[in-house]
Amino acid sequence: MIPRYSYPEMAKRFTDEHRMSTWLEIELAALDGWVKAGVISPDIAREARERMPLVDSEFVARVNEREAVTDHDVAAFVDIVQQDIGGQAGSWVHYGLTSSDVVDTALASVLADASNLMLDAITELIEALRELAIAHRDTPCVGRTHGVHAEPTTFGAKVAIWCLQIDRDRQRMLHAMNNIAVGKLSGAVGTYSNIDPIVEQYVCQSMALRPVPSTQVLARDRHAELVYACTSLGTGIEQIALEIRHLQRTEVREAFEPFRAGQKGSSAMPHKRNPILCERLCGLARILRGNLTATLENVALWHERDISHSSVERMILPDTLGLAYYMTLKATGLVSKLDVRPDRMITNLESSFGLVFSQPVLLSLVAAGLTRDEAYKIVQRNAMRSWDEQQSFRALLDADPDVAGRVPASSLDEAFDLKRSLRHAAAAVDSLATTVDSPDQFNVRRPSVNRTRP
Amino acid sequence: MIPRYSYPEMAKRFTDEHRMSTWLEIELAALDGWVKAGVISPDIAREARERMPLVDSEFVARVNEREAVTDHDVAAFVDIVQQDIGGQAGSWVHYGLTSSDVVDTALASVLADASNLMLDAITELIEALRELAIAHRDTPCVGRTHGVHAEPTTFGAKVAIWCLQIDRDRQRMLHAMNNIAVGKLSGAVGTYSNIDPIVEQYVCQSMALRPVPSTQVLARDRHAELVYACTSLGTGIEQIALEIRHLQRTEVREAFEPFRAGQKGSSAMPHKRNPILCERLCGLARILRGNLTATLENVALWHERDISHSSVERMILPDTLGLAYYMTLKATGLVSKLDVRPDRMITNLESSFGLVFSQPVLLSLVAAGLTRDEAYKIVQRNAMRSWDEQQSFRALLDADPDVAGRVPASSLDEAFDLKRSLRHAAAAVDSLATTVDSPDQFNVRRPSVNRTRP
Amino acid sequence: MIPRYSYPEMAKRFTDEHRMSTWLEIELAALDGWVKAGVISPDIAREARERMPLVDSEFVARVNEREAVTDHDVAAFVDIVQQDIGGQAGSWVHYGLTSSDVVDTALASVLADASNLMLDAITELIEALRELAIAHRDTPCVGRTHGVHAEPTTFGAKVAIWCLQIDRDRQRMLHAMNNIAVGKLSGAVGTYSNIDPIVEQYVCQSMALRPVPSTQVLARDRHAELVYACTSLGTGIEQIALEIRHLQRTEVREAFEPFRAGQKGSSAMPHKRNPILCERLCGLARILRGNLTATLENVALWHERDISHSSVERMILPDTLGLAYYMTLKATGLVSKLDVRPDRMITNLESSFGLVFSQPVLLSLVAAGLTRDEAYKIVQRNAMRSWDEQQSFRALLDADPDVAGRVPASSLDEAFDLKRSLRHAAAAVDSLATTVDSPDQFNVRRPSVNRTRP
Amino acid sequence: MIPRYSYPEMAKRFTDEHRMSTWLEIELAALDGWVKAGVISPDIAREARERMPLVDSEFVARVNEREAVTDHDVAAFVDIVQQDIGGQAGSWVHYGLTSSDVVDTALASVLADASNLMLDAITELIEALRELAIAHRDTPCVGRTHGVHAEPTTFGAKVAIWCLQIDRDRQRMLHAMNNIAVGKLSGAVGTYSNIDPIVEQYVCQSMALRPVPSTQVLARDRHAELVYACTSLGTGIEQIALEIRHLQRTEVREAFEPFRAGQKGSSAMPHKRNPILCERLCGLARILRGNLTATLENVALWHERDISHSSVERMILPDTLGLAYYMTLKATGLVSKLDVRPDRMITNLESSFGLVFSQPVLLSLVAAGLTRDEAYKIVQRNAMRSWDEQQSFRALLDADPDVAGRVPASSLDEAFDLKRSLRHAAAAVDSLATTVDSPDQFNVRRPSVNRTRP
Repeated sequence: MIPRYSYPEMAKRFTDEHRMSTWLEIELAALDGWVKAGVISPDIAREARERMPLVDSEFVARVNEREAVTDHDVAAFVDIVQQDIGGQAGSWVHYGLTSSDVVDTALASVLADASNLMLDAITELIEALRELAIAHRDTPCVGRTHGVHAEPTTFGAKVAIWCLQIDRDRQRMLHAMNNIAVGKLSGAVGTYSNIDPIVEQYVCQSMALRPVPSTQVLARDRHAELVYACTSLGTGIEQIALEIRHLQRTEVREAFEPFRAGQKGSSAMPHKRNPILCERLCGLARILRGNLTATLENVALWHERDISHSSVERMILPDTLGLAYYMTLKATGLVSKLDVRPDRMITNLESSFGLVFSQPVLLSLVAAGLTRDEAYKIVQRNAMRSWDEQQSFRALLDADPDVAGRVPASSLDEAFDLKRSLRHAAAAVDSLATTVDSPDQFNVRRPSVNRTRP
Repeated sequence: MIPRYSYPEMAKRFTDEHRMSTWLEIELAALDGWVKAGVISPDIAREARERMPLVDSEFVARVNEREAVTDHDVAAFVDIVQQDIGGQAGSWVHYGLTSSDVVDTALASVLADASNLMLDAITELIEALRELAIAHRDTPCVGRTHGVHAEPTTFGAKVAIWCLQIDRDRQRMLHAMNNIAVGKLSGAVGTYSNIDPIVEQYVCQSMALRPVPSTQVLARDRHAELVYACTSLGTGIEQIALEIRHLQRTEVREAFEPFRAGQKGSSAMPHKRNPILCERLCGLARILRGNLTATLENVALWHERDISHSSVERMILPDTLGLAYYMTLKATGLVSKLDVRPDRMITNLESSFGLVFSQPVLLSLVAAGLTRDEAYKIVQRNAMRSWDEQQSFRALLDADPDVAGRVPASSLDEAFDLKRSLRHAAAAVDSLATTVDSPDQFNVRRPSVNRTRP
Repeated sequence: MIPRYSYPEMAKRFTDEHRMSTWLEIELAALDGWVKAGVISPDIAREARERMPLVDSEFVARVNEREAVTDHDVAAFVDIVQQDIGGQAGSWVHYGLTSSDVVDTALASVLADASNLMLDAITELIEALRELAIAHRDTPCVGRTHGVHAEPTTFGAKVAIWCLQIDRDRQRMLHAMNNIAVGKLSGAVGTYSNIDPIVEQYVCQSMALRPVPSTQVLARDRHAELVYACTSLGTGIEQIALEIRHLQRTEVREAFEPFRAGQKGSSAMPHKRNPILCERLCGLARILRGNLTATLENVALWHERDISHSSVERMILPDTLGLAYYMTLKATGLVSKLDVRPDRMITNLESSFGLVFSQPVLLSLVAAGLTRDEAYKIVQRNAMRSWDEQQSFRALLDADPDVAGRVPASSLDEAFDLKRSLRHAAAAVDSLATTVDSPDQFNVRRPSVNRTRP
Repeated sequence: MIPRYSYPEMAKRFTDEHRMSTWLEIELAALDGWVKAGVISPDIAREARERMPLVDSEFVARVNEREAVTDHDVAAFVDIVQQDIGGQAGSWVHYGLTSSDVVDTALASVLADASNLMLDAITELIEALRELAIAHRDTPCVGRTHGVHAEPTTFGAKVAIWCLQIDRDRQRMLHAMNNIAVGKLSGAVGTYSNIDPIVEQYVCQSMALRPVPSTQVLARDRHAELVYACTSLGTGIEQIALEIRHLQRTEVREAFEPFRAGQKGSSAMPHKRNPILCERLCGLARILRGNLTATLENVALWHERDISHSSVERMILPDTLGLAYYMTLKATGLVSKLDVRPDRMITNLESSFGLVFSQPVLLSLVAAGLTRDEAYKIVQRNAMRSWDEQQSFRALLDADPDVAGRVPASSLDEAFDLKRSLRHAAAAVDSLATTVDSPDQFNVRRPSVNRTRP
């Protein structure tokens, strides 16, 4: 996670301080669990809490220094915590646990929280898209396929399609969060050999996680699904950004990403307004795709675990969540302040000589009794000429006896009527009212855990 | 999809015959839709059905020949169908539709069917895993982390963890199927410019698909999710296969993949029994991961569609579904007939001199009042010596005053008691009864559509 | 490899017939090698050749049938060959060899041949690009960055840059071919335990391969490099295709991919000419990228080999070479017959009100003594107004005392002079004469081996 | 690049300070170039150098602050530098340049330097491998295929194969370095519209880079090749690490990665020595593969450039070079201090009852006149029995009339002779003397540029 492409509310969840703070939370909850299991006295747990260290940068530095000796981060952490708490209470810290009970449950907790943050951000993006779609429900523009003018559509329809896609990504994130909001304190190979299952239940409940069967670690398909959810979202945002890049082309100019006063488009060409944010979003989606590949290679581990996944996750997980969050917030800003040019959309729509209405012309010839193939040839002949000679398609049709002799002018009027063409075009926008989940459906999310110490 | 790695029930869904047959089904249903919309008379639709061509290899050859002229497969298909049906009925074929209305809805239908087939196959794999887990609920073996003996576990626990993972993959497949079981007949840019929305509703309903807002094509995050579901499943199977490869190593020999009479393990070394199926499954998982990357690059298209995704899908989708299905069936056979060697598991478990019980020894020292660090050093000292000198760990502890002087022999007896160590180990297996969805929960799947013509 | 995206001269190298034919070639050469090593009599080798089977589809069918028993393809092949040759000569077939000696050397030979074919194809693409670049050495068009008009360039310069990139890909292919044109006949773990190194030398020499140290198999970084070379080439072609897609947009129309008479651009919109080949090329590049990932996962194998790479290679290698070859030939056709529109290039160049000359204006203000920042603000102010009001940039400058008062009209004339702007623009095209390797440098390629039997 | 997995000598090349320092170097060299072109007086260039700012963290902070206004990093940088230099000299800074002239040339320079550092590190790894191979030239161990005992080999042969692979990766790095050691100062679209080609030549020469034709930016296949070279190297290291993980398994114990005194193998199981470094190296190789995918998506840009590649490169390039360097150094340490256990290798070799000699037995039966198939069945029958009953393979053969009646005991003695089996096994090790390039061949590397200011 590099500062340039991250926001603090996500970044801080992946700091050493936050990680170790979560570890400590688990270690202390485990002591409470042992109390509940009747193995240690409540005094031990209470003493431990009273004397527990503050997890700040200095604490992290001490753990790192100790790790230089142990070559094992949790062992170093436990050494320091036990030393700080001291006495008998200190000795009971980490009792019956294996490192992964702490590390992996903590990671899952951090990821579940991060997913929660993602869901909030995605919801805002969906709202921004919905608003933009509704605002342009009836703004006509040319629809393009293969980069070529096809038929009229509306700008609102474009945006509504994005909105629906991002909503599917929201559901994927929800599904992924549900699969990662789990914990395990079942020992070295997941058999509870030296730990009472009550401890696992207690700790997980206190962290708002579901306890699940595991080996030494939680299965990595869970983490991969979260990275997939981020990646799919990233490609959804890439779709939006790609479209805006196209619309901002010099030859198109139908929409522009926000451009601040003082911003320099180019160090050399002052007239330029470049869609640099959109280009950046497209680039970042590539990183997410690459990360997904790496994460999927992490799933198949040796026996009851090997630790090959760990180095990957140290880099990939903060980067992936950090980027997905950054992209979502940036996309929300982009959508909210998008500079849309309806007049230019009309100009472009009209620039292809009316050829965007070729299909209703074709259909009117078919309705007039021609075979599709005959009709096709007549329409194509006129279309090609219109294009080549830059003449009005309608005028050519009016002058073509193969058309004018068969189809009444009123039919052609109808064929060339933009309103008729768009009579159903608002369906996608109107569907947002019912299709996209309303925010209150989010109550399936896990409750935010109050992490402040008592 | 190459024959070597595919099964006919999946492969046939991706043939030209099946694809064009589905196209024809849609074209005819669309005529019925137009009847319903009051635009054409029932006679037209009836005539079309009566005179519709049989979609066989000869039909495909004719379309391919025609495509050499049109350079457009649907245009070629429509030409042939119209010609075969002939007359006015022929002219109404494809009325108001754009190619993608047919192609993309047909593809989604094929993929939804293929997902259905996948779900059946996954369910069988889950059942095979559940049976194997239950059969070995109490079969002890050594648990290994980092490839090194850790603590005892059971073979049933290993398998139960796989079962739970594959069950999560089943849910992912279900989610993906739900997102791909959709259709669109909304014209060139998704605005229903020349088609009545009733036609879309009618056709989709007849295909058991949900009509959804779209551009010219269905959004490609849907297809990517299906490839992700296959890939995640593939890595789940890779996990199983990887473990069996490890267990079948000459030095381990705890389990063997089935070996048929007559099979040659090696052209040169007759004694070899190689886990070639498991190795193959690991390899095929890599292909799926690669395919996922390609599919995710398909999501962001230009404007109302570009066709860059199409060539990718022609190759990737059959391959992905074909391989995922092949892997699932092969994995089911592998699991069902796995040659498990409980005696060898005991031998290996005992081969590490009792070191797998080091943690309860450590905890008994902590319980006796030592700090964790002191206890750790004592245990590690004896453990290292046991390992280096290949002596019984227990014997060394008995002879060490730092241990024997502090911990009663009965505590050590308990620490070295395999039964005690495994007292909770069946939890994962026992959870299968309640955690893994029973087959009847599958009723959310779409009903199989009867594709035979009336 | 699917027929739709492959050419026979490449496809036939990956058929079962060709593979087994190469196997047989190696088996027979190995007998000659054993003769040379003095182990068997020349009669044995001669007899074997005389009675060797013809490798045709029937032969393949027999091997496949036998494989159903052995579950091992080479073992099945050897069984059939020995049976056909019969007698003592038959028994000596495969003597001292392990399957991989045959299979892996044969695969390397096929891949080296395929690389050779690729090099020929790439050379033709380079030639087509060079010709197009030279033809448009002085065709002005607007250069665009971020999709926005920047400064004038030439169409020839665009193409020359592509030509140089494809030439680098040619060198990568050459490097990869050099690394894959190797063989090994060193037995089960590469120690020549039961084979004389003379046999390896003899066979490799007869196949025009270098013998190299190996485990049971050749190291897989060699195969991965070939897939990388194909993938890099694929992205080079993607670059070309992407540009043409942009140039063919309705709003741009500066170049069109070839469009045959009779071709249907769209089943619904007769006026459309869609860059479908270019879109297809962009799609296929994605498949290559995915394949590369899979192939790189094949490199790290267990001990002296595991066979997990094999299933991957059966699918990925034919697909990769097949697609890369298809793309290269298609790209060559695309480039050779590209429909370029110089008039439209001029129109577009002039459509941005002269803003493409903003930098020389800026520099003339700096030369006149303004700070860069002052100059920038003045230029940007006029550029923005020109853009917003769709007025001539030059006219605004002439009317702006901050400019006209400082810079003589002759300086502005020069700044707006297209010829001046392009005075060095032919450098890239002119460099092709010296930079791009001439075809005769290809003599480093391995000589084609005459595979016809004596 | 996270500190945990990076070394300072590589990391510092990717700091803001180093980047901006290289920018400044280019800006000043460009002034010298303009002097050479006769456009500005030597005094301007001299003044600029005299008053140029020191690029330290404070300078970076000022640029970043300014970027908050310009939203363009180079524009911000130029503003600050011009301000610091002041006067006329300041105004000439960046004259005729576009941002990419500075940024892209600087990036290429940094990457060429980083490649150089990589080459040094790879050479050390090759040397360490060569030494280890030679040291164990004659150390017998069992060769394994599919994880199953195959035939004897030597540990030296294993290592020699790695050494040759890493040497191929060294050559790939060299090739990549050659392709990235290039520069461009040809303006906004690569046409030298406002810059004299002499400036490019001068600046590139001063940076030890080759000037090459370009668009606004250098072609991205160059950067992708460097990432490929790092990735291929990473998979080579993964191969080594994977093997050591296998050899360190409890059941194998033939080699151990170095274990420091005080290191804690596990927080719970004191007897464990886990190959955590090797596991980490395997994990990091996955990240490199993912990065390669992302980088290859960067190659095809829009027109004369879009900036989508930039965000990818900001993250991927430092990470890739940083990780590849870290992995190489770690692998060198691993190889240098590897704890090899020849005695254990012998024990394992002998543990499979002599079955590793099954092939020479087979061949002696063939030599005795049996068909291969008959011989195979006899050998397999005895091999299976030996395995199942854990009896000496030789003893069974001696007792089997089908063998003993045909093959003299002396032939069997020979077949079971380890020395005979390994008589050619040193070939791979011995090839290192001639195959692996000696360090002095590295003189093709670019000379290190002295970057200290005069």
